[in-house]
Amino acid sequence: MSPSNPVLSHHISSQFNEDLQAVHTKFMTMGGLVEQQVANAIHSLLDTDANLAIDVQFKDNTVNQYERDIDEGLTLILARRHPAAIDLRMVIAMSKANTDLERIGDEAAKIARIAQNLCEEGESPRGYMETRHIGNQVRVMIHDALDAFARLDVDQALKVVMADADIDREYQSATRTLMTYMIEDPRHISRVMNVMWVLRALERVGDHARNISEQVIYMAKGMDVRHTSIEEIEQKVNQK
Amino acid sequence: MSPSNPVLSHHISSQFNEDLQAVHTKFMTMGGLVEQQVANAIHSLLDTDANLAIDVQFKDNTVNQYERDIDEGLTLILARRHPAAIDLRMVIAMSKANTDLERIGDEAAKIARIAQNLCEEGESPRGYMETRHIGNQVRVMIHDALDAFARLDVDQALKVVMADADIDREYQSATRTLMTYMIEDPRHISRVMNVMWVLRALERVGDHARNISEQVIYMAKGMDVRHTSIEEIEQKVNQK
Repeated sequence: MSPSNPVLSHHISSQFNEDLQAVHTKFMTMGGLVEQQVANAIHSLLDTDANLAIDVQFKDNTVNQYERDIDEGLTLILARRHPAAIDLRMVIAMSKANTDLERIGDEAAKIARIAQNLCEEGESPRGYMETRHIGNQVRVMIHDALDAFARLDVDQALKVVMADADIDREYQSATRTLMTYMIEDPRHISRVMNVMWVLRALERVGDHARNISEQVIYMAKGMDVRHTSIEEIEQKVNQK
Repeated sequence: MSPSNPVLSHHISSQFNEDLQAVHTKFMTMGGLVEQQVANAIHSLLDTDANLAIDVQFKDNTVNQYERDIDEGLTLILARRHPAAIDLRMVIAMSKANTDLERIGDEAAKIARIAQNLCEEGESPRGYMETRHIGNQVRVMIHDALDAFARLDVDQALKVVMADADIDREYQSATRTLMTYMIEDPRHISRVMNVMWVLRALERVGDHARNISEQVIYMAKGMDVRHTSIEEIEQKVNQK
């Protein structure tokens, strides 16, 4: 638990605080694990490391177990402690963000599965530069989203939302490049398709990091900014 | 609200029941809308109906508004009514399933966007039979999952979980077919790729229908059956 988190430090001392802190710590640990899973999945692909790819797929079970534990912890808090106001928002935000973290874990496992295939079938001749680039960016997004979550930092959350728009553009551009390549050299279609699925997974990871950031804004400001343009979000946040 | 729903009928009369019923009704209405959105998205693709495709993308805003309204309703219930036991599980299940419904709506909008492209650029020469077939199956899955949710029907929920395994197999097979076709006739790669993305979206819809069904089992039995094999789920459900 970060000592600077204003929700977790406003309770002077209580069973409630201990319960919420325990789940919050678990949530942040899961976040760190998921971030590592994405990093390892990309490494396994770029370095054709089959063992690392297998390891990522195996560790997805741990991610799933975290998801279950966190939801169970949150349900107990709701049942026993009846949180209100910002405490309730934190419980709800963690429940939503928990799903996003688990889905990021799924995407990492998917990338690792493809990496394993490419180790066996032979590497793709194209798309690795794009994978490395977009991969690095979404890793930063996960990290920043979790950091914003830990510190309830709305400005940081806004940065992640903005970064997601960049990712979407770069994903579109990378897809077009790979498609052109497939048309020019159809012998590699199957292997290039694998890279296409990896890029798709990374783009989804970016979406989930954005979702987590939207939950930070919900926690801090009590505003539901899902399905809202960046301009509108900024306006709303600054008004309050 | 279905009169046969055991959660909603066990309260003799209370403000709590009214609040929960109101959100439940909204949830079921959203479910019907989302089911229709998927059906229309597939129609717009198969019948190259650009107007219908535009309509689906536009109506996604309504789906998003439902998501926000439902979450707001659930948060108010948690803050004011402090539900316990199966009532609390219903609130949590609806919150999770709400996210899945909204994501199904996203996938429908995605399919409609691709349909619109294909109306403009020319149809794909392949993959429509697979789209029709898998499309029909996932529509049935959404319908059955919502029906199971309304009636808290665990057996029906289990059927949806099993259907998802079929979808995954058929999706894999359809993908292989389309890939072979692209390799044989690279002139159509770009248009066939569009159908590939549609199939991917439909496969995701199947996953979300499965998620909703898992929440039915959670509501009814208090068991978290996410990340659990069908055999284990059946065993667990029958033990209790």
